[in-house]
Order: sequence, then C-alpha cells, then structure tokens
Amino acid sequence: MASHTIILAVLWLVIAPMGWARKLAVKDPEAELEREALQKHRLDSINLLIFIFLLVCTVLTVWLFKHRRFRFLHETGLAMIYGMIVGAIIKYSGRRVNKYAYSIEEEMNQTFAPEILWLKYTTTNDSTPARIFSYELQGIIHDPSSEIQIELEEKATFDPEVFFNILLPPIIFHAGYCIKRKHFFRNLGAILMFAFIGTTISCIVVGFIVYGFVQLMPWSTFSLKDCLYFGALISATDPVSVLAIFFDLHVDVDMYALVFGESVMNDAVAIVLAATIDNYRASEFDVEALFTAVGSFLGIFFGSFLIGGLMGCINALLTKFTKIRDFPILETVLFCLLSYSTFLIAESFGLTGIVAMLFCGMTQAHYTYNNLSDESKKRTKELFELLNFLSENFIFSYMGVAMFTFQSHQWHIDFIAAAFLAVGVARVCNIYPLSFLLNLGRKNKISFNFQHMLVFAGLRGAIAFALAIRNTETAGRQTMLTTTLMIVIVTIVVCGGGTTQMLTWLKIRVGVEDDDTTGQNVFQELGTVRIGNEEDERLLDVDQDPNAARAIRRAKKKEQAWLVSRWYNFDHNYVKPVLTNRGADLSQTLPGCCSAVARCLTRKEESTMPRRGSDSEIILDDELSYGEMPTIIGGGSTDDITPNITPNPHDQDPASDGDLGLGDHEMSPRSQFKGVTPGSSQV
Amino acid sequence: MASHTIILAVLWLVIAPMGWARKLAVKDPEAELEREALQKHRLDSINLLIFIFLLVCTVLTVWLFKHRRFRFLHETGLAMIYGMIVGAIIKYSGRRVNKYAYSIEEEMNQTFAPEILWLKYTTTNDSTPARIFSYELQGIIHDPSSEIQIELEEKATFDPEVFFNILLPPIIFHAGYCIKRKHFFRNLGAILMFAFIGTTISCIVVGFIVYGFVQLMPWSTFSLKDCLYFGALISATDPVSVLAIFFDLHVDVDMYALVFGESVMNDAVAIVLAATIDNYRASEFDVEALFTAVGSFLGIFFGSFLIGGLMGCINALLTKFTKIRDFPILETVLFCLLSYSTFLIAESFGLTGIVAMLFCGMTQAHYTYNNLSDESKKRTKELFELLNFLSENFIFSYMGVAMFTFQSHQWHIDFIAAAFLAVGVARVCNIYPLSFLLNLGRKNKISFNFQHMLVFAGLRGAIAFALAIRNTETAGRQTMLTTTLMIVIVTIVVCGGGTTQMLTWLKIRVGVEDDDTTGQNVFQELGTVRIGNEEDERLLDVDQDPNAARAIRRAKKKEQAWLVSRWYNFDHNYVKPVLTNRGADLSQTLPGCCSAVARCLTRKEESTMPRRGSDSEIILDDELSYGEMPTIIGGGSTDDITPNITPNPHDQDPASDGDLGLGDHEMSPRSQFKGVTPGSSQV
Repeated sequence: MASHTIILAVLWLVIAPMGWARKLAVKDPEAELEREALQKHRLDSINLLIFIFLLVCTVLTVWLFKHRRFRFLHETGLAMIYGMIVGAIIKYSGRRVNKYAYSIEEEMNQTFAPEILWLKYTTTNDSTPARIFSYELQGIIHDPSSEIQIELEEKATFDPEVFFNILLPPIIFHAGYCIKRKHFFRNLGAILMFAFIGTTISCIVVGFIVYGFVQLMPWSTFSLKDCLYFGALISATDPVSVLAIFFDLHVDVDMYALVFGESVMNDAVAIVLAATIDNYRASEFDVEALFTAVGSFLGIFFGSFLIGGLMGCINALLTKFTKIRDFPILETVLFCLLSYSTFLIAESFGLTGIVAMLFCGMTQAHYTYNNLSDESKKRTKELFELLNFLSENFIFSYMGVAMFTFQSHQWHIDFIAAAFLAVGVARVCNIYPLSFLLNLGRKNKISFNFQHMLVFAGLRGAIAFALAIRNTETAGRQTMLTTTLMIVIVTIVVCGGGTTQMLTWLKIRVGVEDDDTTGQNVFQELGTVRIGNEEDERLLDVDQDPNAARAIRRAKKKEQAWLVSRWYNFDHNYVKPVLTNRGADLSQTLPGCCSAVARCLTRKEESTMPRRGSDSEIILDDELSYGEMPTIIGGGSTDDITPNITPNPHDQDPASDGDLGLGDHEMSPRSQFKGVTPGSSQV
Repeated sequence: MASHTIILAVLWLVIAPMGWARKLAVKDPEAELEREALQKHRLDSINLLIFIFLLVCTVLTVWLFKHRRFRFLHETGLAMIYGMIVGAIIKYSGRRVNKYAYSIEEEMNQTFAPEILWLKYTTTNDSTPARIFSYELQGIIHDPSSEIQIELEEKATFDPEVFFNILLPPIIFHAGYCIKRKHFFRNLGAILMFAFIGTTISCIVVGFIVYGFVQLMPWSTFSLKDCLYFGALISATDPVSVLAIFFDLHVDVDMYALVFGESVMNDAVAIVLAATIDNYRASEFDVEALFTAVGSFLGIFFGSFLIGGLMGCINALLTKFTKIRDFPILETVLFCLLSYSTFLIAESFGLTGIVAMLFCGMTQAHYTYNNLSDESKKRTKELFELLNFLSENFIFSYMGVAMFTFQSHQWHIDFIAAAFLAVGVARVCNIYPLSFLLNLGRKNKISFNFQHMLVFAGLRGAIAFALAIRNTETAGRQTMLTTTLMIVIVTIVVCGGGTTQMLTWLKIRVGVEDDDTTGQNVFQELGTVRIGNEEDERLLDVDQDPNAARAIRRAKKKEQAWLVSRWYNFDHNYVKPVLTNRGADLSQTLPGCCSAVARCLTRKEESTMPRRGSDSEIILDDELSYGEMPTIIGGGSTDDITPNITPNPHDQDPASDGDLGLGDHEMSPRSQFKGVTPGSSQV
C-alpha cells in the first residue's frame, strides 16, 4: 500500500500540471477569467524574464569588455544591441495569436465614448444566465486591420508611463546627487547657457529644418508645432557612453564638467520645452499664445525646481534635527521616500517630476548629505548607483527590443534623413556660436578642440526616447518615435564608439588628475564663472573675522559672476548653517535680534552631531561638496590619515566645515575621483 | 516693452495652469483620451504619495520609539495603524464621483465574453465621423448597484498581483539570505516538522472548525474546500514584530531559531497548500483527487525548491569562475537580476515564485555569498535589508488602508469569531503535540515555556493577507479577506505588543549571547538534530587527514540526524568546493579518475581568488555561514583584530574556510549578532 502511494505520488508529480489544464477546460465564466489572468501572468513573467536575461547578458559582456579594456562599446550600446537581437527573434519567431475582438455598433447621444462599458450578454444556446462584464476604455483604433497582434510582441511593449514614473527618476536623481558640484558650479555660466539658450536654439533649428523638409514629403501631415515638438524631444542629449570614457581616461575636468552639466541640465529644459509645445494650442502664430508658452515654460521649470529644492531642504532639516542618524537604515529609507515623493508631488501638481527630481538630487547632495551618518552616505550613493545602472540599461535594452516589437513603426527614410541633417546642423548652431559668446567673458576659454568635442558628444538617449514613446497615438508621433530610435542607435554606436579616437584626434588631455593638485594658482587662473571663493571662505572660517573676509571677498568680486557669488555667500551664511552643521556661524551672520533663533539652531546642532570632525566624515564629505577641502596634511593615500584637528572645540567648527585653511593638497583629487560617479561610469 | 514682457510672463506663471484646463474643454476624442490619461496619472501620483507619506510617518515614529526604547508597538503595527487612520480619512472624506458606465445588451453565439471589445460609435448630433474605441475585459460585475465607486477609494486599491510579484519577493528573499543558518540548521528537524506537519495540521483544524461553524450560519455558501483554503492561507505565520523584540532583547538563540525558522518555512508550505487546495477540483471526497492534491503539493513545492537552488548555484558558478568581483557594482547587479529571475522562472513554469525565492536566498547565502567581493557582500545585504523594510511596511500600511478602502468587505461577525477560535485551537493543536513528539528525539528539549511562547508567536501578516487579497471575486473570498485583515490586525497589536510581557511571564532567557561563547561544551549539549560537526570538520581541515576525521565523524554519528549529516558531508566534500572556494579539497574527495576535473575546478579557484584569507573577509563570512569560525584568537572587539594566518599557502586553505581549529571564542557571537538580520529587526 505504501509503495502504491509513493508510485502514485511520483506519477502525479508529472501529471499534475495536466490536471490543471483539464480543469481549465470547464467553460465557467469565472474559471475562464481566472485562466485568462493566469495566462496573462505567465506572459508577463516571460516578458520580464526576457529583459532580465538581456540585462544579465549585458552585465556579463560588460564585465568581459572592462576586463579586456575594450572601450569601443559602452554598456548601454551593448544593452541596445542585445535588445535588438532579442527583438528580432521575438518578431520573426512569435506565433501569431489572433486576439478575438468583438465589434459592436452603437449610436449614442453623448459627445464622447464612455470610460467604462458594461456588456450584459446572453448566449444563444441559452443555459447560463445573463452576466454583466465590465470593460475599460483602452484607446482609439485607427486602423482596424493592423490591430491583430502577436501576443508576445504586444507584451514586450510596456506602458510608456513606466519610463517616466519608474525608470527615469532614479537616473536623473543620481545625476543630481552625484554631480561633481565643484566643477559643475565653476562652469555654471557655460552650462546654463548651453542648457537654456542652446537647447532652445537646437529645438527651433531642428523644428524649422524638419518643417522645411516635410513640405516636400507628400505623405506628411506634420504641422510646425509637431516639428518643434520633435525638435524639443530630440534636443535632450544623453552622452552616458562618452562620459564613461571621459571618466575612465581621466579627461580634462572642465571638458567633463561641460559635457556632463550640459547633458543634465538640457534634459530638464528639453522635457519642459516639449511639455510647453505640447500644450501650445493656438493654430497660428499669435503673440499672446507665445507669451503663454514662455510663461508656461518658466512656470513648469521653476515650479519643479522649487519643489525639488524644498523637498531636499525638508529632508535636510529632518536629518539635522532628529537623531535618526543613529539608525542608518531608517535614515536611508527616509531619504529614498522623500526623494521619490518629490517626483510624485511635482506630478500631482501637473509639473515635471523629472526636473524636480534633478534639483532634489542636487539639494540633497548639497545639504542633506552632510547630515547623514557615514553608513547612510555610502548606502544612498550605492543604492542610487545601482538603480541608475539597472534603469539605464533596462531602457536601452528596451529601445533595442522596441526597434522590432513596437507595433506601429512608421518608416519614412526621407524624414529620418532630414532629422539626421537637422540634428547635426542644430548641434553646430548650438555649440559654436554659444562658445564664441561665452569665450568673450571667460578667462579659461573653451578651445576649438573642446568645441568640436562638445558637438561630437551630442548623443541622444533615454530622455529623448521616453519623450517620444510617451504619446504614439497619431502617425506623426509614430514617425517621430521611429526616427528618434534610429538617431539614438546611430549616435550611440557611432559617437559612443568613436569617442576615444576623437579624443586622440582633437588632442584633448587625458589622464589628468584634478586641477587642484597643482595648488591654488590653478584656482586663480580659472575663469570668471565659478562659485564663491574657497580661499576666502577658508580665511573667514579660520580667522572668525567676518570683516577681514568681507574685504578680501570684495576685492576679488570682479573675478566672479555676480549672481553666483551672491548666492554662494547667502548659502554659506544662512542656508547651510540652518540646514546642516556646516557653513558660517549663525550667531555672527544673523542680525542681533535673531540671536535666540541662531542659538536654538546651533544648540540643536551640537547635541545631534557628536561625531563631527571624525576623519572618515571629512573624507566622505569631500567627495560630494564643493569648496571644502579635507583637513589632512600630506599623505597621498587614505590609509595613513592622521587628522590634524585641534582639541579646542571652537576650532573644530571650521574643521567640520572641511577646512583648516591649509589649501589644496594631494588628498583632494584622489577622493574626488574615487567618490563622484558620473552616470554609471564608475562600474 | 521689456517690462511689459516681464509682467506678462509673471502673470502667466499664475494663469498657465488655467490655460491647460481651458484646452481640455475641447471635446476632441484624442484630447479627451489625453485628459483622461492625465487625470488618471495625477490620481495615481496622489495615491502613491499617500502611501509614501504613511511610510515617512512610520519611519519617523519608529525612530522616536527606538530612540525612547518603546517596545510595545513594532514598526509594522505602526504602519498598519497609520494606514487605518488614512484609510478612514479617505473613506469618509472622499468626494463621490459617479463613474459613467454605459450598458449594452448583446446576444452572442459564443460561450464566453470576448476579451477585447471594439465599440464603433456614432453620435446622434452627427458632425464627427464614426470612431472605433477599444475596450478590454476587466471582470464580472456581481452587483451592479455597488459598482459606482469613490474615485480615490478605488485608486487606493492596488492590483493584488503587485503583492505577489513585487512586494513579497524581496521580503522572502531577505529571510532566506539573512537566515541565521547555523541555528537554523541546528534546529532543522523541529523547523521542518512544524512547517510541514504543523502547517498541515493547522490548515485542516482551521478548515474543519470553520466548516463546522458555517453550517450554523444561514448566509454562508462555504464549501469544505473553501474552509480548507481559508485554513491554508491563515496558517502562514509572520511574527516580524516578535522576532524584532527577540533580536533586540537577545533572546535565547534556539527560541529565536525555532520561531524564525518556523515562520519562514511555513510561509512556503502555506502558499503551496493554498495553491493545491485551490486547484483541487473534485466536488466530493475521492482518493484519486486526494493523491492528485498531494502530488501537486509535492510537485509545486519541490519544483520551486529546485529552481531556487539551481539559480543560486548558477550564480555561485558565475561569480566563482569570472573575475566579475573586480567590479562590485556589476556583481551586485548580476546577483539581484539572477535572484529576481528565479521568481519569474518559477512563475513562468506555473510553480510558486515565492518558495523558489526563499530557497534561492538560502543557496545564495550558502554558496554565492562566499564568492562575492567584500563590497558586494555589504551591498547585497544592505540592499535587501532596505527592500525588505520598504516592502514590509508598505504591505502593512496597505492593510491598514484596505481595512477602510477595500470596496467589498463582507463583515460577518460570526465568521470572524469562529475564525479566531479556530486559529487559536489550531495553533495549540500544532505546537504542543509536535513539541511532545520532537522532545522524544531531542536532547535539547523544547521546554513548556518555549512551547507557550511558540503558540503566542503565531502572528499573522503579509503572506496571509497577500493570499487572501489575490482572489476576491466571490462573496466567500471577500469574507475571508475581511476576516484575515481582522486576524492580522488583532494578532499584531495584541501578540506583538505583549511579547515583552510574555517573555517575562514565561521566564525565557533574554540578554543571551550566542551559545558558542562558552566554548565547545555547549555544543555537545545541544540536541541531536543539528547540522554536521563543526569540531570534526575543523580537525579535518587542519590535519588534512580524511581518514582520521572520518573515524571521528563515525564515532559521533549517533548524535546526528542521519539525513542532515549525510547532506552536510556531501555538501562539504563536493558541492561547496565546486561552487565556492571553500569546503574540502576536491582532489582528495573525488575519485582518482576525476583528478583532471578536480584540478580544473581548483586551479580556476586559485586564480580568481587573490584576496583569500584577508581578515575582513573572514569576519564577514562568519556572519553568514554555519560551522565556520573566524580565525582570530582572543580580542573581544573587532577593532584590534590581528589575523593569525600562516603564510604557507597550504595552510591558508582552511584559513579561508574560516577555521584554524581554534574552536569558539569571543569573536563569533559578536559578529553573529551584528551581521545576521532577522526580518527587518536590525533597524
């Protein structure tokens, strides 16, 4: 009997799945629904599995490339190529399942199709009772003949909102959080110019060139607005692969800062531009509508900027005034939750979550990061690095797959050619004239070779794709998506692959350690647009004499961009001391009447920060803060750090501010190169 | 003119959003669809924002509780209470939006409602052309009157699949990955007994008691199968809050291992049991159907087990035979991707992803973990800790919110009361008889006080809820969900809150450091069911004399469970050396004919592991491996470690295996308590 049991049991190990299938043959509506859900769930699993398999392949190949020091193909390019291979397999091997679509004609006296449809159906061979099924509106069918799809192919198409709501936020946040802020702010003028003016130029130039060409294309239904929308979305550059190579080769820091800064900021500008153009309703040119558009642009941009900044400040205050740093995991969780909520808040207000995320990342890096415990500093950086890597490669894999599986590609070679031409011309019209203008005011000129490199670094990537796939309702938008995909793939493969060669041709310095290695003289040489005066602040902190420092600052003001330096002073004197335990002493910078407030803010600070001035903290902070040098004298390696902190508690204040007035030294470049990750290039 | 421009621009900052609203008034079908999508997107954002806000509140309150050392409420309980408050607010303040549902009657000659419905509609006031809209089947409407929902309320209800596919996997993986394997395996017999036999007893007892009661309830339509299904889902215990308190108070390690191990394994058993009962189709009792059920249970369970184990092994091989450890982020990404793909593979095969995930986590901890770079070890642990925290608290928040916002609660006080009674009785029928049986074979008896504590630790949580919410199509299932929610809330608040008091009453030792502190004698005292003989292996490794070791092992075999010790030997001699760089020397354990294979596997190992025997690695490994003691002599703190590793490369082998035959010492408990995280209790 027992052996009988075992045999039966073993048999059923094999047959059980069949039992399931048998059970599913019953045509009970509920069982049928269940079967459908099960089927859908399996397909979903297989679909996700395909992408994970792609990512695993990418990771392994990337490792091999890194191991063998191949630089001609970046991981994102690789992910895309693998994606294309798998996409082709899915497309040409998929079994065609004719999905049954039942057509009903109905005359209604309402202007729009109902959101929910209840179908009460009775079968002709009447045994089952009438049942009501609920249907939800999915979209408009433009071409009834093309809508019968291959099941897996259809599955491999994600909801485009996934890109905007889940995949892009960590990428953008990471860019803001891990920005090399010192170099970024030093080139802030140039970066803002390229981002705001440059992106607008690019958008307009692309728009008009494409509009000119589509006049010659009989098939096209593009309006000028459509062309400008395409101009906006294709103006978002994404040179991850170039930046990764720059990082690997330790290319000139200013070159790096320009390319990185431009790409980060112009994403934000391009997204808002695209939203603005999309909302532009006037059919003809109209001054009022133009002002509306400009106002809407500014409103969305600065609204998002404010929300991002505000959430960063809230997080800074929370981490400063609670002892949550004693529980690093709670701190990290809080940090992640507040950062993601920034995105959601901006979206809830109808603003742009991605832009808010970028500025939230920057604020978090500038303020909150200083309040975090050492463990949370590491954890947050590593976490966002990981998420950035995963999201980025997922998007690029998806682009490769979508090249084949996207259902409504519109291949118009003429349009694609025009777009390539327009993109190239727009890049040229953006970089060279603006560089010329910038060079008029910069001491540290942008050389012609740098300019050529900037033009070359105009790769297109994730943001352009996400914007293009967001709306593919009309044939025009479908053409845009196809064209964007082509541009992304070609620029990534050609420009990404040719970066090393280009650097050689243009004789751009590689293997450069941070400028600061050579000491303060380099500082003096650097252009007029740079943030604050680190030297001055240092003197200020050590002497604790605001008057003398102010005098020095005044004397040097000519060298600085007025707005930037103003902001830096304000930040150092008021914002930083309130939000973090750094910056100036509040009791000295605030007017006398506010001394109670100042004391309150400072007292709190002292009780919550028992570990200030510990060496590890200083080193870590240096990785993510500008104008704050570590306190270690000499010692080129992190292994033999002996912090030179005077025991006097008053002197510790500037020490924890990262500086004892000892200027730059060998430590800083190393830690800077180690800790700050551009894109996912630290991999 | 310029000032005019500025004024206009500023004006539009305010008015722009209205402009959007205006644009939306146009009744163009595409614009309408867009408006709807926008509205949906905003609602989604607000909804997610509510949950993130809840989690932020939870994190801050948890910090406050930890700070003030309150232990009466765990973070999950807190999350749930906050969720209930917010749920009540949503329910009683939500504006009621009547969603328009258009009804169509149709007679069809097919057996089932179509999946996709195309509605070609023409408006009566005919100016727009006919358009075709696509609708997708959502479900069956049972009660047409109740389906008009409050918009936000409806939104606050997630797709139940989210729990199974996104939130549960990291929780379960974390449980497997961070299991205290040494103590887990030492109590393996008891744990498996409680998990397999105990959960089955619990399921049957609950099922029959509830079935008995429902006979007296006129409203009920429950079949025995439904009752047994309820029994299965409610048998999944989830004592996170109890474990957190155990961890905080350093409760007796065997107590901890029993509660933790039981809860982890019985989740797996309960999930598979529920799936099996759900698939049981015979309407009456039937021997064949019963065998089918048992076979299906075993098939699903062991199929999932195998997939989990296999994927873990693949990952171990990948990390062993590539130098991917040189790039920690790639390694971490690979680890995460392969782990999640385990879930998807199991689901694609129609098995249970959660169970596969659990065993994958265990395999990864046992093998892969040893191959990872130090950085990846930290990263993976921290990452899953974070994900576990987030997922767990999200689920509990959601439970609180669902208490109010779930649309189809079925409040049957009689059923709830019967369920409470049944759950209590089942817990008693499970723990006491099985403990009695186990004590017959254990040297280290489970005392009565331990048994009382085990009964008390039968909290219900995430898994029970996820199983209950997975299918709420029928009124019966809705009753189950309501009842499950009540049981979860009551057990979490009452049992979770009373744990400290209970520990005092039952006089269970707290503040216990690991048993091993007292040296080897404790080892001898511990029951018969424990894994391998650490001492023997140690001798084996040091002496490199298999015969002597084998002799000792044979002499001690009486003390060990035969199967467990068999497995341990096999693992140590063959599996570990192949998959990792630990365990026995393959060239000695494999037969002579396989020496080429052995050399190949061993050679690879040496080239890939240049950093073996470094002190940090040994300390970290100790945190997650059983039977491997660190090599540090004396020194109760990690700060003054001076690893005692002989320079001879041959002697390094056992060193990197974590042992130089020096027995137990003060180091091990510390590192064990530091590194191994039960649930999210390290927070």
